[in-house]
Amino acid sequence: MNVEADLSPLRAFLESEGIDGYCIDADGSDSDQRYVSGFTAPDPYQTLVTDEGVHLLVSGLEYGRASADANADSVSRRAAYDYQALVAEHGRHEGKVRALEAFLTDHGVESVAVPRNFPTGTADGLRDRGVSVTVEPEGIVEGIRATKTEWEIDRIAASQRANEAAMATAEELIASADIDDGVLVHGGEPLTSERVKEEIEVTLLRHGCGLDETIVVCGADGADPHDRGSGPLRANELIVIDIFPRDKESGYFGDLTRTFARGDPGEEARRRYEVTERAYRAALEAVEPGVTGAAVHDVACDVIEDAGYETLRSDPSTETGFIHSTGHGVGLDIHEEPSVSPAGGELEPGHVLTIEPGIYEPTVGGVRIEDLVVVTEDGYENLTEYPVSLEPVAR
Amino acid sequence: MNVEADLSPLRAFLESEGIDGYCIDADGSDSDQRYVSGFTAPDPYQTLVTDEGVHLLVSGLEYGRASADANADSVSRRAAYDYQALVAEHGRHEGKVRALEAFLTDHGVESVAVPRNFPTGTADGLRDRGVSVTVEPEGIVEGIRATKTEWEIDRIAASQRANEAAMATAEELIASADIDDGVLVHGGEPLTSERVKEEIEVTLLRHGCGLDETIVVCGADGADPHDRGSGPLRANELIVIDIFPRDKESGYFGDLTRTFARGDPGEEARRRYEVTERAYRAALEAVEPGVTGAAVHDVACDVIEDAGYETLRSDPSTETGFIHSTGHGVGLDIHEEPSVSPAGGELEPGHVLTIEPGIYEPTVGGVRIEDLVVVTEDGYENLTEYPVSLEPVAR
Repeated sequence: MNVEADLSPLRAFLESEGIDGYCIDADGSDSDQRYVSGFTAPDPYQTLVTDEGVHLLVSGLEYGRASADANADSVSRRAAYDYQALVAEHGRHEGKVRALEAFLTDHGVESVAVPRNFPTGTADGLRDRGVSVTVEPEGIVEGIRATKTEWEIDRIAASQRANEAAMATAEELIASADIDDGVLVHGGEPLTSERVKEEIEVTLLRHGCGLDETIVVCGADGADPHDRGSGPLRANELIVIDIFPRDKESGYFGDLTRTFARGDPGEEARRRYEVTERAYRAALEAVEPGVTGAAVHDVACDVIEDAGYETLRSDPSTETGFIHSTGHGVGLDIHEEPSVSPAGGELEPGHVLTIEPGIYEPTVGGVRIEDLVVVTEDGYENLTEYPVSLEPVAR
Repeated sequence: MNVEADLSPLRAFLESEGIDGYCIDADGSDSDQRYVSGFTAPDPYQTLVTDEGVHLLVSGLEYGRASADANADSVSRRAAYDYQALVAEHGRHEGKVRALEAFLTDHGVESVAVPRNFPTGTADGLRDRGVSVTVEPEGIVEGIRATKTEWEIDRIAASQRANEAAMATAEELIASADIDDGVLVHGGEPLTSERVKEEIEVTLLRHGCGLDETIVVCGADGADPHDRGSGPLRANELIVIDIFPRDKESGYFGDLTRTFARGDPGEEARRRYEVTERAYRAALEAVEPGVTGAAVHDVACDVIEDAGYETLRSDPSTETGFIHSTGHGVGLDIHEEPSVSPAGGELEPGHVLTIEPGIYEPTVGGVRIEDLVVVTEDGYENLTEYPVSLEPVAR
């Protein structure tokens, strides 16, 4: 039930640098930790990658589950390294460092590379004990995670199916609402952003997904791509719905955005929708191995600039127009490698990424259209099966 | 809409150590970051505490929201410190470090204390630039967070109300189930752990709370306090339900456990329930300012050992009996200070903590009863209003 991580780039780095091992000290909410260990736990545990294997150091409470579930060659309890006695003698944090040092020594490790977010308290503690600690600056594990296995792609696709069910719930609520004095009304009550988000989230729960945040944002509020939205939804205005659920079992995300309007949002809004849809289709068609994320971003910018709107490329200080990147990788994190932005490097088969251009301005509102795709050997496969339509339909 | 954090212990530490500021580099999922900044964001940002104020360094995307929402004396955009140019010249991570260094310099800060989990990449980068970085070993912010304001207690109580609604949903499902061949059946389908968890989580969503994990565990599986449970619930066996929701708006948790049985779980299970309930009531009555968490834990151990069961106090290697601590603090983290365990220090007014003794063994299953309380000037106030009863009732 886990990705089989190909850690060879990490081992090549260790060998080239003459470093004995790579160590992660984090809980399972750290996606590098979850990916490398094939395990997740609410409290920090330590994962050590050496040329010989992957080794975990966990609390007694997690030992049974880690032994059964983790992608590890060995799992050790802290108690095996006198953790309780060390804590009693030296305090909780120095005790933890000394147990970790004993675990490293047990695996013949005197020098470790660590991720950038490795705790400074642990790093300084190990250094004080004579262990060499070097920050691995490139994010090698993040790089490995960018290329998904078939198993991972299936997990992401499953999250996207749940996502589509939730989007259909939201679209149907909007499509079937009555309009009273310009406000959408459902079941006699104003249809608010909050109500739609709640129904989205209940639908996701019924499909095994959780999420903390959903965007259902109407009118001028939609001009801020990070505004989550609040209050009644209104007719004749743009409504942006952006859903990014996480499968509770696998931890993999989906990501999907659609923009709707009941009634007539006006000619300028319709034009922006049409331009955004063209930018989205052009960017999608540009996705293939060997093309850079930057080049895909340029394709979206070209369409939007040609239509007369600003982008961050045409004006780095603009606060209206296309004011974010075209996309990002999706996996155990909602934002991960690769980037579909001016900084985006070459796309490779197995990369999973969003394509989500948009156009924003307070007087008109926001438009954004987003699909989730996987790069294939000769192009891309769209993991999204949701129609694109400004007019909401009860499906 | 925020706690007004009393950072004076942190400032006293800085002054006594002759350090210019305290710096956090984390996203809003880090509770120290959320607490000190009064802000939360999905990507890392930096918070600096000096003797003059609290200063935030955020991306342009978060600037508007941070300026409106944060508990900060000043909010700066990275762009104000040439972030993009520094990234273009030095790469993303070195660019980030240099922008942070410029921000520190701007506030007259040449030395910082940092939390133990501060990223080693940032710490080493700042040190390379001549900034002194010292790990603050005691967890001063965690210590400050342990004592809740009235505002925080109200938030936690609100999460506990949602929690009780979810527990009532679960209890009612179990109480009203039919029994077919020893298995609980509801609506013609076996009543599984998964179904009950889903209804709990939907109820929590309807009350504005989210959560990733819920425990609904039956029979022998319940002997492992960390087993989340799966499969059909059975009559005549102990069913442990442990719910720890987080309010989506405030970020504060609740925590509640009850144990139920349909039919007759047997004399030994009933005895364990009765002993656990006595331990729970005795531990509750021991809670008052000036008493240590260790002393409260001892009270629970006394009751359980006197009844003839092992505890980790009577046998540190036992895998049955009372095999965890009596409780833990609850706030922005589900596990935080203070500890109600052998390591637990003095309780103080405003501490919010769980009391949750339990007795476990595979042949009998698990029993646990848990309330959430706040320490008051002369004792405690129970933030939990849920009845204690082994027999489930449709309320």
